[in-house]
Amino acid sequence: MRISENGIFLLSIAVSLLSFGVALFFYQWVKKQQADNKRIAEVGGFIRKGSNIFLKREYAILARFAGVIAILIFLFLPEPIWSGDMKKNITMAVAYILGTALSALAGKVGIEVATIANMKAAEAAQKGIRPSFLVGFRGGAVMGMAVVGTSLLGVTVVYALTGDATAVLGFSFGASSLALFAKAGGGIFTKTADVSADLVGKVELGIPEDDPRNPAVIADNVGDNVGDVAGMGADLFDSNVAAMAAALVMAMNLGTTTADKSSNIIMVFCYAALGLLSSAIGVLSARMGKKGDPTKALNGSTYITTVIFAVLTAAATWLFGFEWRIWGATAIGLLVGVIIGIASDYFTNDNKKPVQFVAKASKSGPAFTVLSGVSYGLLSVLPSMAGIALSALLAYNICAPIGEGYAMFGISMAAMGMLSIVGMIISNDAYGPIVDNARGLAEMGGLGDKVLEITDELDSAGNTVKAVTKGFAIGAAGLTIIALLGAFMSEVNSAAGLKGLEKITGFDIMNPLVFFGLLVGAAIPAVFSAMLMLGVDKNAQRMVAEIHRQFNEILGLKEGKKGVVPEYEKCIDIATTGALKELIPAGLMSIIVTLLVGFIGGVHAIGGFLTGNIVSGLLLALFMSNSGGLWDNAKKFVEAGNEGGKGSDAHKAAVVGDTVGDPFKDTAGPSINTQVTVVSLVSSIMATLFLSFNLFRFFG
Amino acid sequence: MRISENGIFLLSIAVSLLSFGVALFFYQWVKKQQADNKRIAEVGGFIRKGSNIFLKREYAILARFAGVIAILIFLFLPEPIWSGDMKKNITMAVAYILGTALSALAGKVGIEVATIANMKAAEAAQKGIRPSFLVGFRGGAVMGMAVVGTSLLGVTVVYALTGDATAVLGFSFGASSLALFAKAGGGIFTKTADVSADLVGKVELGIPEDDPRNPAVIADNVGDNVGDVAGMGADLFDSNVAAMAAALVMAMNLGTTTADKSSNIIMVFCYAALGLLSSAIGVLSARMGKKGDPTKALNGSTYITTVIFAVLTAAATWLFGFEWRIWGATAIGLLVGVIIGIASDYFTNDNKKPVQFVAKASKSGPAFTVLSGVSYGLLSVLPSMAGIALSALLAYNICAPIGEGYAMFGISMAAMGMLSIVGMIISNDAYGPIVDNARGLAEMGGLGDKVLEITDELDSAGNTVKAVTKGFAIGAAGLTIIALLGAFMSEVNSAAGLKGLEKITGFDIMNPLVFFGLLVGAAIPAVFSAMLMLGVDKNAQRMVAEIHRQFNEILGLKEGKKGVVPEYEKCIDIATTGALKELIPAGLMSIIVTLLVGFIGGVHAIGGFLTGNIVSGLLLALFMSNSGGLWDNAKKFVEAGNEGGKGSDAHKAAVVGDTVGDPFKDTAGPSINTQVTVVSLVSSIMATLFLSFNLFRFFG
Repeated sequence: MRISENGIFLLSIAVSLLSFGVALFFYQWVKKQQADNKRIAEVGGFIRKGSNIFLKREYAILARFAGVIAILIFLFLPEPIWSGDMKKNITMAVAYILGTALSALAGKVGIEVATIANMKAAEAAQKGIRPSFLVGFRGGAVMGMAVVGTSLLGVTVVYALTGDATAVLGFSFGASSLALFAKAGGGIFTKTADVSADLVGKVELGIPEDDPRNPAVIADNVGDNVGDVAGMGADLFDSNVAAMAAALVMAMNLGTTTADKSSNIIMVFCYAALGLLSSAIGVLSARMGKKGDPTKALNGSTYITTVIFAVLTAAATWLFGFEWRIWGATAIGLLVGVIIGIASDYFTNDNKKPVQFVAKASKSGPAFTVLSGVSYGLLSVLPSMAGIALSALLAYNICAPIGEGYAMFGISMAAMGMLSIVGMIISNDAYGPIVDNARGLAEMGGLGDKVLEITDELDSAGNTVKAVTKGFAIGAAGLTIIALLGAFMSEVNSAAGLKGLEKITGFDIMNPLVFFGLLVGAAIPAVFSAMLMLGVDKNAQRMVAEIHRQFNEILGLKEGKKGVVPEYEKCIDIATTGALKELIPAGLMSIIVTLLVGFIGGVHAIGGFLTGNIVSGLLLALFMSNSGGLWDNAKKFVEAGNEGGKGSDAHKAAVVGDTVGDPFKDTAGPSINTQVTVVSLVSSIMATLFLSFNLFRFFG
Repeated sequence: MRISENGIFLLSIAVSLLSFGVALFFYQWVKKQQADNKRIAEVGGFIRKGSNIFLKREYAILARFAGVIAILIFLFLPEPIWSGDMKKNITMAVAYILGTALSALAGKVGIEVATIANMKAAEAAQKGIRPSFLVGFRGGAVMGMAVVGTSLLGVTVVYALTGDATAVLGFSFGASSLALFAKAGGGIFTKTADVSADLVGKVELGIPEDDPRNPAVIADNVGDNVGDVAGMGADLFDSNVAAMAAALVMAMNLGTTTADKSSNIIMVFCYAALGLLSSAIGVLSARMGKKGDPTKALNGSTYITTVIFAVLTAAATWLFGFEWRIWGATAIGLLVGVIIGIASDYFTNDNKKPVQFVAKASKSGPAFTVLSGVSYGLLSVLPSMAGIALSALLAYNICAPIGEGYAMFGISMAAMGMLSIVGMIISNDAYGPIVDNARGLAEMGGLGDKVLEITDELDSAGNTVKAVTKGFAIGAAGLTIIALLGAFMSEVNSAAGLKGLEKITGFDIMNPLVFFGLLVGAAIPAVFSAMLMLGVDKNAQRMVAEIHRQFNEILGLKEGKKGVVPEYEKCIDIATTGALKELIPAGLMSIIVTLLVGFIGGVHAIGGFLTGNIVSGLLLALFMSNSGGLWDNAKKFVEAGNEGGKGSDAHKAAVVGDTVGDPFKDTAGPSINTQVTVVSLVSSIMATLFLSFNLFRFFG
């Protein structure tokens, strides 16, 4: 059976609409859950208001930024307006704006539902763990379905209207550039608040987490939403779109006949739509078992989704006569994703040796907590990097026999395979901050110890699952950016073809321009993450000073005198202002260096530059995410009564480790993916310009 | 004027002998300095004995290891004994053993003089800062002259006898494999002792550094010798030999006539000999100015050496009619080395912003010390990596017009340029641990506060200069391993030529085997450094327990009762046993993974693998060395009375930072260079085997 391009577009749109339906159903379901605790409504209202204010101010800045970029795109891309076809420039600028707008919308939807679901989940916990879990999960699933539905819909519409994969690159660049800043801004906000609240509250004063006396406590909960919900959503929106864009760019250059090309494009959309469908089935079927283990419930539905996806795509391949080899590449991507997730789990799970070793090392003081965490974090990069390397190698070799160009297409399809279940991943990821918030609300609403125990358990499951999904996300991003490197070469060669220049056959490491790019490119993710962490560092110092001021100046606050409340909004304001100030420079730096390298060394230097970015980006992202998760769980392990338990010296040391790990895992680590993606997309979009204008043109 | 190969060999040997003369002169001079303090003689004797015992046990293990490797080389390299020319196998095995033996000898000489110079420098400090400086510096210079003289002599003899650059690779591999383990073993020993002594002494009990009551104090001083003298010497012996080996391998494949080739080989030896000569003049002229600033004296003689070298090589180039372009590449290497040194200085000097920022951040607790130090450490990689990238690009393009193959030869000569002043660098580097030891001896010998002030100043100058020389060393290693990548390709192609296989033209990143190697290779330095740091971590925990035991069980120790001495040798024994246990696995891991990648993916995978190693190795080495140096100086900055001074919370936090930084900068960071060099040499030596036997042979 054959399916036409139009047929597949309709299918994609239908599945997108279906996912919106699921999102809407869950949203209504969450909204109608019981809510009658006044204190929770009040605090929840603060959180909701704070999140929305931050988002509004952030988007106001980003809208101006996106406007400037859109004008530049219109003037210069894909070719300077005076030398090319103006229609193409308009198309790309519009696609870019659409990308930013849809990404922003997805973030907004996430905040909208998360700041309701948190209150409902807190109150549902009074009825038991199962109903509370369901509220948290379904709240997260609204985000999951909305993000993936929007991204599929956006890519489909842009491609169906233009028939041009380069326009999809423009759309993808829009999504990425928004994600870059949303992730950085949200990441700085959330960790500023988290670190400051912990440092003064837990370490100095010894008051519990989420204690309402702490002036930073609301800011901390706002941070969970703007960082882990809105920022994370923008990030995965971006990854998903980038993976599709890379696959489409390469599909455009495949095969000798239009039918071949069309068949590959159909396959990309078909697999993407089936991935979303599988995730929709997965989230609809998610329920906690009788034993009430939330980790099992989350991981269980993830695995179910992967199986459904594998079966559905196999059926589609058989039905529509797609290449089985490409299906194989996709399946490999999926499989390796699972393996990477399991490896991440090993390094961050408190049942395993690394966490327990770090907890034990904490007894000798914080220096040992940090050293052993750094060491295990560095060790943890091996299985994931080897996994990504192996899956790329296998996907390449499986697809190479189909014909020229299919090998790299195979890698991009492996990335699509890993990302196929992204709807499920986002649902799991957004579940985390919702139940984290619910825990805070239960504490501040005075729902009692039994409810706190339940929310603690839900929260801890969120942390564990996060490690797995993060491994997945980094792996998928790794494969995507490898595919984007292929897309870059495709773009260079199609531009070279148009200009009558010689096509390039690859990027030879022994070419000094490539090597030059490689070394400079490797430094960029390091500098980028350093700038973000310094942002958190500076910002948190300001906030710590403010918290100290409030505890000193507001009488009765420390003692918890009735009716005395801290000035929450001052802390929210510090976090907001600081995050917005620090959010632009790091992202801008990475874009500017890309332009410098491109205009100095041309496309060969950029090939090396992207590779350097990929290699050091993966290394640092895996290191930071895993060591951060490890420290977090080592602290929880000590708090559970091991190595001296709460209040012991080991605990104090473990808190230091956790504080170091916070910006590692929630600010810098996950932003690196986005940074590398943006750099890759900028390169692909600028390919024509780099080819025409560069200092070393004659060395290439 | 022309000079023959034999002429240049004689010149090299003469300069080597001259440097031995300088070393002997300094050694005698140091020995005849006054010494009459009994307590110092006693403690100094302990240190000397401890160092020698460790060295003996270490070398015993390494001799067995080297024996096994030599047998394997004899059986399999450069080709399996049953299929090649047995004479070549014997040559290589003998060259390998010679490399290990000379490297070990250089380390032994260093220990011999350093453990005398430390006592003499302590007593000389009673007469003032200038005499004490001279003792420390000349003690270090013995090591500097001995190491570089031995390496030049060794390479000259091996090459003159065999006329075969591959034999020099074997010699270099011997030096590297010894350096790998000596650096790792010494690094683990020294930081185990240092960290444990500080943690219990300074942090827990608040007793001063080098207090004789501290059971780990002698082990700490032994560590300075076995880690920073013997280990560092082996490391730079290795770098120097590797740079010459890479240049020689490439010179062998250059030019169309034998005369061309010969002229290039003569140039390599000539520049190396002139580098040693310049260093000899530099160390002979080193004296402290009237103002008595030791940092200026050390840096001043470094800069003098670079100028002398530039002038001498220019004269030789003019006299012997060498290519001026190659001289240009060498000069660029030298210049960029200086720039990298200055950049490292910025990030680690306490007059500059990074150190002061970290000191200020320490007021908010140790987590901020760690976070801001990590951030600045990550930032610091950019100037150095960009500098290395730029110098490689320039050297390549300057030399490319000479003819085919000269471009890569230019890079190797840039590396030689950076390493030309290695004799001076080692002298400066070995000065550090000698005056550090002198400080300890002055404290334990009760020489009074005025003497301590002098030794403190000398010690602090050693730390500052270390940052500059470390930047230099890493930069040179970076260029050397780029050149080794070229050497690897040369070896592959000469093997391919012999076997009638197609020559390779480079390593294309878009080749999935190259990419596979790249990702796996990038993970190796991370895993390697993690293993070393975990070694320190585990070992230090054992030693901390032992120190606690002694303070609890030995009555009167804590109170400093007269006549009560701790059991120093127990701590030395723990450090020794632990270091020897942890020293083999990390090095072996990196060699085994290289073999795996080579036998799976062949030469293309290895090309990528080496590149991945270089990129992530440079990134991590720079990050670790600089952040470690930064934390050390931030602590000293606080101790000098800033941000609350000694005993304040900021000080406690800064000590945590310093403790984290210790294994960063003295165990893992500097070992990474050696690890990458070893991997590069293994690859070059195994080139023929990887070409013939690999799983993916038909994918290449």
